[in-house]
Amino acid sequence: MSATGKVKPGYTRALDLKHGCIEMSHGSGGRAMAQLIQQLFMTAFDNEFLRQMNDQACFQSINGRMVMSTDSHVVTPLFFPGGDIGNLAVHGTINDIAMSGAKPCYLAASFILEEGFPLSDLKRIVDSMAKAAQAAQVPIVTGDTKVVEKGSGDGVFITTTGIGMVPEGIHISGDSARPGDKILVSGTLGDHGIAIMALRENLSFQTSIESDTAALHDLVAAMIAVTPGIHVLRDPTRGGVATTLNEIAQQSSVGMMIYEDRLPIQEQVQAACEFIGLDPLYIANEGKLIAICAAEDAEKLLHVMHAHPLGRHASIIGEVIEDAHCFVQMQTRFGGKRVVDWLSGEQLPRIC
Amino acid sequence: MSATGKVKPGYTRALDLKHGCIEMSHGSGGRAMAQLIQQLFMTAFDNEFLRQMNDQACFQSINGRMVMSTDSHVVTPLFFPGGDIGNLAVHGTINDIAMSGAKPCYLAASFILEEGFPLSDLKRIVDSMAKAAQAAQVPIVTGDTKVVEKGSGDGVFITTTGIGMVPEGIHISGDSARPGDKILVSGTLGDHGIAIMALRENLSFQTSIESDTAALHDLVAAMIAVTPGIHVLRDPTRGGVATTLNEIAQQSSVGMMIYEDRLPIQEQVQAACEFIGLDPLYIANEGKLIAICAAEDAEKLLHVMHAHPLGRHASIIGEVIEDAHCFVQMQTRFGGKRVVDWLSGEQLPRIC
Repeated sequence: MSATGKVKPGYTRALDLKHGCIEMSHGSGGRAMAQLIQQLFMTAFDNEFLRQMNDQACFQSINGRMVMSTDSHVVTPLFFPGGDIGNLAVHGTINDIAMSGAKPCYLAASFILEEGFPLSDLKRIVDSMAKAAQAAQVPIVTGDTKVVEKGSGDGVFITTTGIGMVPEGIHISGDSARPGDKILVSGTLGDHGIAIMALRENLSFQTSIESDTAALHDLVAAMIAVTPGIHVLRDPTRGGVATTLNEIAQQSSVGMMIYEDRLPIQEQVQAACEFIGLDPLYIANEGKLIAICAAEDAEKLLHVMHAHPLGRHASIIGEVIEDAHCFVQMQTRFGGKRVVDWLSGEQLPRIC
Repeated sequence: MSATGKVKPGYTRALDLKHGCIEMSHGSGGRAMAQLIQQLFMTAFDNEFLRQMNDQACFQSINGRMVMSTDSHVVTPLFFPGGDIGNLAVHGTINDIAMSGAKPCYLAASFILEEGFPLSDLKRIVDSMAKAAQAAQVPIVTGDTKVVEKGSGDGVFITTTGIGMVPEGIHISGDSARPGDKILVSGTLGDHGIAIMALRENLSFQTSIESDTAALHDLVAAMIAVTPGIHVLRDPTRGGVATTLNEIAQQSSVGMMIYEDRLPIQEQVQAACEFIGLDPLYIANEGKLIAICAAEDAEKLLHVMHAHPLGRHASIIGEVIEDAHCFVQMQTRFGGKRVVDWLSGEQLPRIC
């Protein structure tokens, strides 16, 4: 935390976490900020690194290749069925780290708060982050807080950055898909995006669909334990499976063929998509991954995924093919073929 | 960069960097976002890590203890005499890393853009970041871009996160100040805050005062080369020297005595402070550090600082004393003493 500072008891005015709001002074670097950090963030995230009370966290060397990833989170609304911006921000960065096969080690969290934002909501978000970080066993070791005037932000934006360690012998990258490889997804598609959309649009079916927000590093660890040679992992967040597959196809200079009838999609999500007029292939997921591996590894990998709580509905959805145009195609339920293009324009703003 | 994706030539519509604006689609995860990342960020920040085109950057192990630090930047206005939000965001995080004595190794950068923000301004900011990162020899290895609706943000917010390596034998921390230690500052106080304030208030003297924004890691490296036993380093940003000294006093359970006549303050800054009614001790600096070291090391350290371009106006401004109340006191020019308290309330919002 920048400008932390152990606040002496005599100097402490307790934050009113029930009725208080963020004030500009909470971003000033002075006593009010020290109180906010001490009484809210330090209390929720407490660990040996934060207790160093410096503007940076210090820790032992990480042995092996490292990865680093960062994501800002601007999701609206801040609270949604199955999650909130807090655990989403923890899961999102853990997942970006995990998609290299790495074990996530440490997180940093930076908050941009809008003047007037209720402290009770902030506490709920911070507690949710703390819970997610603890469940994932990835400590939040450093942070920052800024405050902007009412009308210059939108409640709270959270940027998380993570670092992780890649196990020996693991080389997973978006440019490693090869013709003949199989394409797997770890579970049902579109749950996060539809949970958010249903809430925004106040649709009647909103309560039954929950965001899939989850940390996938444990599933990844199980997967690379049996198949260290996985070629590609990526989480299909913004832009959905369609855009993620197109990214990988471009990076690897290959084409892809997926099969509509193998896409795992919840009935409710399918129904909601038809109702709103959205294609589940383009909808953000926050607890799913795409894996691409050699054909001979696919069944073994699928088996391991099925045995993990976050991979129960995993499916082999297609294969990598040669294609100079790097097209992603889909064989439809009716036997036809169509190109599955990149997401164009903007479908679901501020979904994460 | 999340959801990067090499955009095939045939798919590319060139960004209109002169007249274009940020649209919601630039945050969608689809083609427009890929274009923005490819044509603006990747072009400016180009390095081997970004060229991996994955959602995380991968690099070799760092040998030794590591540090990690993060800061969101919400400064307004975005461009100011002596700098802009772009180089400020690079310098700010490099400095937080450097204040542990560490060599900064890698940066991550995450952008929250407001719909309608001119691409020409974004390009100016991104180019400034790239230049600052290159000058500091600290590559920006990964990033993220989010877009919020017009009115939900304020142009651009930038969160940078850095990691660094602490040299063997260096143990610098805010809790290490000891009675008898000397307190040094590396140069003139208040330049950044007054440059911003003068611009905001449209004061006539605005053109003559520039922000001191600068990366201090090279100065720190020179300092620890001669005095590896420095006890404390910290950059007095928000809350200024007064608040930073109070933080350190609390962490180390000591008191401090500083001398008003030894504080290096530019005449123009002093005049501006008197005019606006601000105390330079509470004003943010973005290219200055406070160093606390054993009395016998102080002159040697001062000598090294004077020899560095960023330490030319360094000064020994006081000493650490025993004080159960952890007060920071100042002996005034007229021989009196006063307590230099934490910043209370909010003096200069959105200064960094």
